[in-house]
Parts: sequence; structure tokens; C-alpha cells
Amino acid sequence: MILIGELLNSTRKRVRAALETRDAAFVQDLARRQTDAGVHYIDVNTGALLDHEVECMQWLVRTVREVTDRPLCIDSPNPEALAAALELAGPGTLINSISAEARRYEDVLPLVRKHQAPVIALGMDDEGLPEDADRGYAVLSQLITRLERDGVAPANIFADPLVRPAGANTAIPPAVLDVIGRIRAAFPQVHISGGISNVSHGLPARKLINRTFLTLAMSRGLDAAILDPLDTVLMSEIAAAELLLGRDSFAMNFISLYRAGRLEEKP
Amino acid sequence: MILIGELLNSTRKRVRAALETRDAAFVQDLARRQTDAGVHYIDVNTGALLDHEVECMQWLVRTVREVTDRPLCIDSPNPEALAAALELAGPGTLINSISAEARRYEDVLPLVRKHQAPVIALGMDDEGLPEDADRGYAVLSQLITRLERDGVAPANIFADPLVRPAGANTAIPPAVLDVIGRIRAAFPQVHISGGISNVSHGLPARKLINRTFLTLAMSRGLDAAILDPLDTVLMSEIAAAELLLGRDSFAMNFISLYRAGRLEEKP
Repeated sequence: MILIGELLNSTRKRVRAALETRDAAFVQDLARRQTDAGVHYIDVNTGALLDHEVECMQWLVRTVREVTDRPLCIDSPNPEALAAALELAGPGTLINSISAEARRYEDVLPLVRKHQAPVIALGMDDEGLPEDADRGYAVLSQLITRLERDGVAPANIFADPLVRPAGANTAIPPAVLDVIGRIRAAFPQVHISGGISNVSHGLPARKLINRTFLTLAMSRGLDAAILDPLDTVLMSEIAAAELLLGRDSFAMNFISLYRAGRLEEKP
Repeated sequence: MILIGELLNSTRKRVRAALETRDAAFVQDLARRQTDAGVHYIDVNTGALLDHEVECMQWLVRTVREVTDRPLCIDSPNPEALAAALELAGPGTLINSISAEARRYEDVLPLVRKHQAPVIALGMDDEGLPEDADRGYAVLSQLITRLERDGVAPANIFADPLVRPAGANTAIPPAVLDVIGRIRAAFPQVHISGGISNVSHGLPARKLINRTFLTLAMSRGLDAAILDPLDTVLMSEIAAAELLLGRDSFAMNFISLYRAGRLEEKP
């Protein structure tokens, strides 16, 4: 699994305050703890600071870079902020995100090409978020095909079926799981990613819902996720799922995590 | 999900002792607690008491019947014990199990027909346990087809791909998951079941492995399981999976379990 740490997100109140006051200690602590938890990318999001986002993103990238060499995942709706961050963040940076919306596709594709960067490809177009599996699959598969035609290597595409709250519409998560399975079958070389915590928004026992959804999605072919890497039960379940999906020879990773006291089994 | 409570199993040391001493209080307590936990069937296994199994099974069925009207799942390698228990247990009893082994098929099919009983169908034949997904699928699909041809309704077949320890061979659980997905696609009307706890035998953090495997298997189409219904974290994850697979309209079951204090969010 490719893990993308979600905690440095400006929609979180405490993070937003840290960005506004340029609280480097707070930001660097979250960057370090996510690194120690084993993430492959650290998401940096400044979208909530609309009026001075570019400057804020630049500060955030520099501040995180001081304490970790883990690649970043630059998360912004603003192409200028993406561009500025990509100049600073170094090679291997993941772009979050492109979509099939006409304007966004045109704005972000040049950045993907210039930096030869991996990119999260959101399965939505100008008609909005697909509600059923057929349209979800159609939009996302067409976006993948278009990116490949535009020169993006399959291994650089992180297809994202847009995980949305079960509480708002219980038909959406099963549709998203269907899309994951169909994309995995049709495009074996692309990554499939999703923002896991979205699924539990508005419901109780959110961590229970998040980890269960992640495991269901891994079973269908998801191999990357934006998540809270400090949720040790979630991380334990990922290790178990990797073992049970045949990706941990002789259970060596699972057993070494257990010996290091990093697996949480039961209440 | 159809839940089959596994705790009254003679391979468990404490249960075996209770069976040998005819400790009705112990047995009835386990039957009651599994009923309260919401199982649909209570498995009763006396296989470890080889020399007086029939008599022991009769006592066990009568003893459990005194405290719960939940259907039983009669679990024995001995056709005489199955036959004796089926006479006592009443309608709706689940037979555990038939297989594609020639002798077992011939011994158990008459019981299935006589009682019009649902039956667990183990995907093994006289060549033993299938190690890879292709043979696992071939053996189990042929067994289902044969049972249907012999007059067993698809809804009375609980196809079981034989869950085995990841610790012995990490290639087996992914093969079992593949078999589940292929059986679900080919036989939409049969139930697919498995003994979940087997997967973690010999490994640490067994409950973590059990619940993760169950969720992975539910994602592929498993809709019944033999499990420990007193494992509240496992039961919570089942409720979350049912919600996320679209089987809990408006999340009403999930929310009512939460309100009743029956969901465990984190260990």
C-alpha cells in the first residue's frame, strides 16, 4: 500500500491556525510523526487559505522539507499554488489533483508533463460527482485513457473514484467499491487511491467505518490511500490486509510490526 | 450476514471438559451468550469425543435446545452423529458438512434430502485441500453443481472454500479470496461461508487478522461466517461492512447499535 498522510490539511482547524500564524513547530511535528508512521507521501493542503494560498503553500513546503525527505503530495484546487509548490518540493512529488473537468484538466496537465509527476486523477467531470457505478466507471476510465494518450505513464496515475460519506447516501460507498474493482480489472497498472476519512463524515464511530472501508476497498484493488497514519488500529489493519492479500511473504512484515509493539489487536 | 457461533466446539479444551462432565450450566451459558450476540445459528461440535460422539451430540443438542430456539449447525465428521442430532434439533438445522469426498457425499446427501436441510459444502475432494484458486474454484463449483443436480436448492447451499492459516502458507488466503469472488459471480444465489478463525492459527494478533480477513472476504461476496460472536470488535466491523456494502438503509442498524453501546470503535 502507498500511504499518503492527510494531517497537514488546512480544512482542519488547528492546522489552519498554524498556517495563519506560521507555526513551524506544529507543522514540523505533524510532518515528523507522519514520516515515523511510515507514510510514502505527506499531503500538504492550503486550500482553506484562499486569498494568500500561493505564499502559504510555499512556506508550508519549505517548512516540511526542513524535517523530512519524504515526497510531498501537493493538494490544491489552485494551479498557481500547485506550480509554485512543485518548483520547491523536488522530484517525485505527487500532484493532487487533476480531473475530467475541462478547465482543471487544461490547467494541471502542463504541470504533470513538465515535472513528469505522478498525479491523482479524480473521477469527476463538469457534470459533477458520479452517483452510480456505471457513470463513475465511465468518467474515471475515460480520464485514465485520456491521460495515457497525453503521455502520462500508467504507473504515474492514481485513479481516485471519490470516496464520499455513507451517511449522506448509503448507495455511494458500494458504488465506489464497484468502480474500484472495475478499474483494477481494466487498468492493472494504474494505482487506485482514495481519501478514506470522507466515508465516515457525519456518522458515529468514524475510525471503525474508515478502517472497514479501507479493507473492503483493498480487497477490490485499491493500492493507495490518503489517510490518518497516526490511527494505529487502521495501520494495524492495513498490515493484516497486506498479509492476507498475499503481499507479505512469510508474514515477515506483520510479525516484525507485532514484535515492535506496533499492532493493536483488541480492546 | 448469516452468523454461525463457533464457541460450542469440542476442540476447545474448556468445552471438551464440559461435554465430558455433562456441565449443562457451562454449555447453556455459551449458547445464551451467542444468542444474545445475534447469531443466526449455533454450531455444536462433538468431533473430539470420538468414542461416544453420538450420545454426546444428543446430550449437547438437548441441552442447548432448553435455552435457545436459535437454529443449530450440526458439526460432525460422523454421519451417525449428524443423523441423531438432526432428529432432535428441529427444522431449519444447518448440516456441517458435506464435501466432494466420495464417501462423505454419499453419507451426507441422504440426510440433506430427508430433512430438506441447508448444508455447508466444503470445497475439497478425495485429493485433499486445493492449494490454488483454480483448483479451489473447480472443486467447489463442481460440488455446488452436483448438489443442485441432486435437488438441493441454491439457497440451501453454504459453499465453503476452506479458510486455512496464513501462517502456514501466505498464498492460501488470497487464493481463498479469489475463489469467493469467482463463486459469487458464477452462483449468485448460493451462500458463501467460511470458518474465519482458522486464518490466524499460529500467528500473533489473531483477532486483528480474523476481522480483517472477514472484511476482505465480505468484499468479495462471502455472506455467512462461522465465528466468535463474543468478539465485539469483529461484530462492530461486520456492522460497518454491511453499511458500506449498501445493506443498511440510512445506516439505521449501525446507528442503533452505536446508540445501544454495542459498537467498539477502537481497540
